[in-house]
Amino acid sequence: MLIEKSRIDEANHQLSNKHQRQFDYVAADVKNLDEVIQKIQAFNIAIPSWALGTGGTRFGRFSGGGEPRTLEEKIEDVGAIHALNKSSNSISLHIPWDIPSNADAIKAVAAHHGLRFDAVNSNTFQDQKDQSLSYKFGSLHHSDKAVRKQAVEHNIEVIKYGVELGSNALSVWLADGSSFPGQLNFRNAFQNTLESLQEIYAALPQDWKVWVEYKPYEPYFYSTTIGDWGQSLLLANKLGPKASTLVDLGHHLPNTNIEQIVSLLLMEGKLAGFHFNDSKYGDDDLTVGSINPYQLFLIFNELVEGMDARGMAHATSIGWMIDASHNVKDPIEDLLQSVEAIKIAYAQALLVDTAALKQAQESNDAVAAQEILQAAYRTDVRPLIAEARLREGGALNPLGVYRSLDVRSNLIKERGQNTVATGL
Amino acid sequence: MLIEKSRIDEANHQLSNKHQRQFDYVAADVKNLDEVIQKIQAFNIAIPSWALGTGGTRFGRFSGGGEPRTLEEKIEDVGAIHALNKSSNSISLHIPWDIPSNADAIKAVAAHHGLRFDAVNSNTFQDQKDQSLSYKFGSLHHSDKAVRKQAVEHNIEVIKYGVELGSNALSVWLADGSSFPGQLNFRNAFQNTLESLQEIYAALPQDWKVWVEYKPYEPYFYSTTIGDWGQSLLLANKLGPKASTLVDLGHHLPNTNIEQIVSLLLMEGKLAGFHFNDSKYGDDDLTVGSINPYQLFLIFNELVEGMDARGMAHATSIGWMIDASHNVKDPIEDLLQSVEAIKIAYAQALLVDTAALKQAQESNDAVAAQEILQAAYRTDVRPLIAEARLREGGALNPLGVYRSLDVRSNLIKERGQNTVATGL
Amino acid sequence: MLIEKSRIDEANHQLSNKHQRQFDYVAADVKNLDEVIQKIQAFNIAIPSWALGTGGTRFGRFSGGGEPRTLEEKIEDVGAIHALNKSSNSISLHIPWDIPSNADAIKAVAAHHGLRFDAVNSNTFQDQKDQSLSYKFGSLHHSDKAVRKQAVEHNIEVIKYGVELGSNALSVWLADGSSFPGQLNFRNAFQNTLESLQEIYAALPQDWKVWVEYKPYEPYFYSTTIGDWGQSLLLANKLGPKASTLVDLGHHLPNTNIEQIVSLLLMEGKLAGFHFNDSKYGDDDLTVGSINPYQLFLIFNELVEGMDARGMAHATSIGWMIDASHNVKDPIEDLLQSVEAIKIAYAQALLVDTAALKQAQESNDAVAAQEILQAAYRTDVRPLIAEARLREGGALNPLGVYRSLDVRSNLIKERGQNTVATGL
Amino acid sequence: MLIEKSRIDEANHQLSNKHQRQFDYVAADVKNLDEVIQKIQAFNIAIPSWALGTGGTRFGRFSGGGEPRTLEEKIEDVGAIHALNKSSNSISLHIPWDIPSNADAIKAVAAHHGLRFDAVNSNTFQDQKDQSLSYKFGSLHHSDKAVRKQAVEHNIEVIKYGVELGSNALSVWLADGSSFPGQLNFRNAFQNTLESLQEIYAALPQDWKVWVEYKPYEPYFYSTTIGDWGQSLLLANKLGPKASTLVDLGHHLPNTNIEQIVSLLLMEGKLAGFHFNDSKYGDDDLTVGSINPYQLFLIFNELVEGMDARGMAHATSIGWMIDASHNVKDPIEDLLQSVEAIKIAYAQALLVDTAALKQAQESNDAVAAQEILQAAYRTDVRPLIAEARLREGGALNPLGVYRSLDVRSNLIKERGQNTVATGL
Repeated sequence: MLIEKSRIDEANHQLSNKHQRQFDYVAADVKNLDEVIQKIQAFNIAIPSWALGTGGTRFGRFSGGGEPRTLEEKIEDVGAIHALNKSSNSISLHIPWDIPSNADAIKAVAAHHGLRFDAVNSNTFQDQKDQSLSYKFGSLHHSDKAVRKQAVEHNIEVIKYGVELGSNALSVWLADGSSFPGQLNFRNAFQNTLESLQEIYAALPQDWKVWVEYKPYEPYFYSTTIGDWGQSLLLANKLGPKASTLVDLGHHLPNTNIEQIVSLLLMEGKLAGFHFNDSKYGDDDLTVGSINPYQLFLIFNELVEGMDARGMAHATSIGWMIDASHNVKDPIEDLLQSVEAIKIAYAQALLVDTAALKQAQESNDAVAAQEILQAAYRTDVRPLIAEARLREGGALNPLGVYRSLDVRSNLIKERGQNTVATGL
Repeated sequence: MLIEKSRIDEANHQLSNKHQRQFDYVAADVKNLDEVIQKIQAFNIAIPSWALGTGGTRFGRFSGGGEPRTLEEKIEDVGAIHALNKSSNSISLHIPWDIPSNADAIKAVAAHHGLRFDAVNSNTFQDQKDQSLSYKFGSLHHSDKAVRKQAVEHNIEVIKYGVELGSNALSVWLADGSSFPGQLNFRNAFQNTLESLQEIYAALPQDWKVWVEYKPYEPYFYSTTIGDWGQSLLLANKLGPKASTLVDLGHHLPNTNIEQIVSLLLMEGKLAGFHFNDSKYGDDDLTVGSINPYQLFLIFNELVEGMDARGMAHATSIGWMIDASHNVKDPIEDLLQSVEAIKIAYAQALLVDTAALKQAQESNDAVAAQEILQAAYRTDVRPLIAEARLREGGALNPLGVYRSLDVRSNLIKERGQNTVATGL
Repeated sequence: MLIEKSRIDEANHQLSNKHQRQFDYVAADVKNLDEVIQKIQAFNIAIPSWALGTGGTRFGRFSGGGEPRTLEEKIEDVGAIHALNKSSNSISLHIPWDIPSNADAIKAVAAHHGLRFDAVNSNTFQDQKDQSLSYKFGSLHHSDKAVRKQAVEHNIEVIKYGVELGSNALSVWLADGSSFPGQLNFRNAFQNTLESLQEIYAALPQDWKVWVEYKPYEPYFYSTTIGDWGQSLLLANKLGPKASTLVDLGHHLPNTNIEQIVSLLLMEGKLAGFHFNDSKYGDDDLTVGSINPYQLFLIFNELVEGMDARGMAHATSIGWMIDASHNVKDPIEDLLQSVEAIKIAYAQALLVDTAALKQAQESNDAVAAQEILQAAYRTDVRPLIAEARLREGGALNPLGVYRSLDVRSNLIKERGQNTVATGL
Repeated sequence: MLIEKSRIDEANHQLSNKHQRQFDYVAADVKNLDEVIQKIQAFNIAIPSWALGTGGTRFGRFSGGGEPRTLEEKIEDVGAIHALNKSSNSISLHIPWDIPSNADAIKAVAAHHGLRFDAVNSNTFQDQKDQSLSYKFGSLHHSDKAVRKQAVEHNIEVIKYGVELGSNALSVWLADGSSFPGQLNFRNAFQNTLESLQEIYAALPQDWKVWVEYKPYEPYFYSTTIGDWGQSLLLANKLGPKASTLVDLGHHLPNTNIEQIVSLLLMEGKLAGFHFNDSKYGDDDLTVGSINPYQLFLIFNELVEGMDARGMAHATSIGWMIDASHNVKDPIEDLLQSVEAIKIAYAQALLVDTAALKQAQESNDAVAAQEILQAAYRTDVRPLIAEARLREGGALNPLGVYRSLDVRSNLIKERGQNTVATGL
């Protein structure tokens, strides 16, 4: 255990009076306080295994120190995050970066930290050393049937690892695309992708889902074969009820109204879940909520409203995961900030006066509608989040505790200064 | 008749030798020359009635002179365009701007100019003087059933006018949207729109189509209820086989790969047709091909390939229309330039060596694929277009003839300097 | 007076206890509380005369009711806003929409409402009825010297009106641009603009400023002659110390980092001021803070820091104005929301722990820097704003009072349902 | 020599008749034919040393084969390109990737291929193995004076290498920026950058230039310290006459009017030159002219016009270089395509009827202006390019010869399948 429960308690004790004063103040105006706190307590966001090391760009990578060298150490890092914020009770693995040599042993390590395994991720956007055919020109969409077959088999193998770990969803991000006009026949690429996904779909266990991610560009710069939500939904509808659309917040063209997409996918019963991050220009993979927190709130407002309307229990039906890249921050600190931002947006959305909003919408009172949303958004909900964390046994101030305990220094001492997390 | 055939012939005679030299040179390298010329001859693009006057922006309008004051004069202007370019044999009306008082008489006027009536367009983005309920907050998506009903009835009335004129498609551009977060419940708006469209769909005659246009923003600036091709396709699929998706080139977010959308809509059998224009920033409604002619070529490359693959005869199955706004140009000159640019892109696409392209795509030879497309694009196809026009009885140089005959000056003398076309 | 002071006091009395509790809570954690409150009290944002009516787009305009029919009524509306929020003590006129027939009388009307006159705005983006030469192809940049001269003289006349009203700045937004490649010689257009501005500059009274606004597109859609901050600054530097650059938040390409531009203009001593609004797509002119309030906060963070660094007293050196268009909202309500959003951003920026931020920046601690900014931003500063307003004699809840007093209904009764504010 | 002159002559011989026919046809309509051909003959574009290997993205790299393993082999590759197209007579080195161990020997190798050394490029966006301080948080803008000093010294060392090689310009692309709001004090970063550049400027030899590149984002995703042309020009003006602004076509926000920027930089005497490439989304570094060739033409139209207006001899005063990344193409083939696209755009621009264009602009005849530009653009100038190449001793069809001689296969045999060019 990187972080002892007793150290968290000590830190909480010191903040106790201040927190109580703040909580009492904010709580006084919250209707259904208990329900709100309980929903926040129950809310967890998965941590991807690749987010625990320092990322980089095509121009280079400036590594940090003390990065996890093994799957066990990645789990250890997520365990530390979860111990602090009590909102990160699962880890999402990336095959082949994180192939467990012994599934039972790894499950035991995870369980020791209170963690389970979220969706498993396949990787056909890189060539692995012993791979017979290259993915240079794509995988599931490839013009060569043999390459498609290799990629399909890889995905089926990923499902197998996932089954062993107790996961129940396959997340497919397909880099497949083209960089030049003419390089690709769009319709053939789409049909090949559909056929490949159908083969993977056929291999899904009974209780599994497949999540189809979309992205407009990068690593290819002219077209992506699953380029937007419309294309992903088209595929998901052709595949069947186990398939749905995964929304990565950074995978959109400039100015896209993401919350509207979320709302419609919910309406269609095809919202798989999220890869959370923030961005200013493209798929920047910045800390969640660091650039446009109001947009994040608007997305959660759609989620809260849409899930209520459909009677869905969010925790079980939608996948929540962070997918960011930490180039200039300590990865663990970045993840703590991201989870906090997500929970703040969620709590604000829970405070929206939905009855009044509905009335404003029906009377086309745009002024009142904005007032209602902003009243929730402008509320300082941090004490509610802190209280929920406290009730779960986490830290009132996770980042503060992490820094005061010198966790990173200890990791560097233990793991070394120049480690590089697998997959980066 | 604004333009006498004899004047066109005279002008052609003067250019005859030069044209013949150019045509012979280009034609020498074109395989299936006759087929190419015939396809170009057969290709027509509809002119919208609202494009014959000077447009403007919210900041004002600088009117031109000699604008058509009546539907008859609009038809007369399109007749002049068609006489010159022999590629604009239909007109698309906009109701209520162009309500014909006597359908038979109007059809006779059109026939006199060799014109027929293309798709009819409804208008629920403005309030008309005698209208009982306002479209300020939308029409088909409105939260108030009574407003939706009024808008549905208007569309059904538009169909009725279209039937009288011999049109067979209803084009629906829905401005409906919201300008502020919270103003709209996205799912209710979508469901209301679907229900309204279903009522309109039910009123379509047997051989009619309904074309569902999409647009991301403007006149509302936060959301549009039919905002992208995914939303339009979702509606078209729920509506049935008579419904399909209309692509206006200017109705996309920055950097959208429009040709990929076109390709996929063709694949799904749901491409209704086009509103052609060009743009640099948003829905700028500039002259077709004036900003990015290579993109236009790429779109036609998809069309030629996709229509061949599906065995579709383009002239009958896809709607082609210009939808531009002429703020600083003479509208007729702008339309002549737009039609020319469209035909150039089409001719270039017809020259693509499709067998070689297919082979390059199958072997992932991006260099060869680019060479093949660029070889067609870099060819100067203007003599092919001119020859096709000549064979149809049009002008070798339509714009030159228009200017040399002082058509606009004559129109100003006849109609006045300060006319404003209806609807502007 | 549209709104009696006594009605405001009554409304405040009812909210008094609740406000006091909230203020006490928030104030307890604010260092330099008095200074912060005083700065908020002193902060005023000008209201443009054209923002008091319902705007529209090129697709149409859905008018509201009770719009001001005269300059006097516009002043009356601003007076109502200022009575409520005590932060809108000036009005910015637009010539020729608002030519005062009797300057002294108008100044008396304004003074009666506690208002003064902010920067005056020239208009060369529309043709006026009696105008001899057209601005269809631009004004100060025009290829025809006679058109430039007419536009220069108009600007000098606007200065004259401004002098009479006690204004001391001329705000120039130049629509001049082109819609097609080739239409304009960029360098000639720039040099013509410079020459025209030099003539206007020469006519500025001793204590006057000229503010040079920039905008990338619209109403022209290929180029704008003063298209970005770099071009505006180039002109301002060539003109001299009285010229500086005006930033309209909506006048930027997608994803522009506006706060960096603001910081650099402050550094160069060339930040004239702001036209505030918000946008998702282009120059959407939405309510300030309705789309991306965090960006607004980041801009104010630069302002607070930059003004401190330069020892500038903001109230006198920088122009603050709202420039929005109210298409679906009551204009007065929209303006109340905008002013509130601006003051919230300002108050949040005042709460930033600048010493800690400086230290984080010097040690490249991006995590801490973000925590510091977000700590200020996440604070609910509404009670501080309300208190400042209360101390100035305004309403604790301006919008609430406006609605409860049925101001709009009274205006409609008085002015009529179908009024259209001049200039719209 | 990778490519024998005799093989090129053989290939030309086979195409001779066809070429002559095409050239005669096109040449017949070109005024000042000799001048145009001579200008095309004289035009050369530098090849950057890093463009000879297969690039990649942050998601991985799919290497090609036969990549140059040494500086000598990079020169050999450029020599092959130049032998074929006679338009790539210089190479641009990147320090420390290409440090020559013996400058005289390397100059002799280059001379053997008819090559000289273009601008030298410094690199402070990566850490080198033996480097004492990290550039993780920037270099010339760094908050730590010691880091700035290290980066300044590196640049001075690059100049030293450049002097030895006969180069006369230092090209500075500064990645320096920030990924999160608050991370950076924008004004301090700017001032630090200015101070650092001033120290580098002071070390420039008498006849040297320093080119200041700008870029809005990547590798940092919130701000870049030299983020746009306005910031670069501000620095260049503060530095002095040896400093000017370098335009990389991919370094702009969506929808930027690059040709206007080029025009204004020319006007100010501050256009250093170009890094050519093409892009659809961001800094995609695609083959020049592969996405929007009309924009490339418009840029050259400004250059031709602007250089004429200023009496500048382009070959000596402006730097021309390709800066692309070849992820799915053979790098040599990609470079051949890029150079061809650049020369086509240049030739088209040379064909513009400038007198007629000037007249159209002065009379605001947007229709005529567009016709004039499009008449030049739609001309098939490939025979002119081929003729110029022929006269210089190059290949009529460079790519065809490259493929028919199996150059890549030979390189793979010689250098191996799994080489990776230095710097990639």
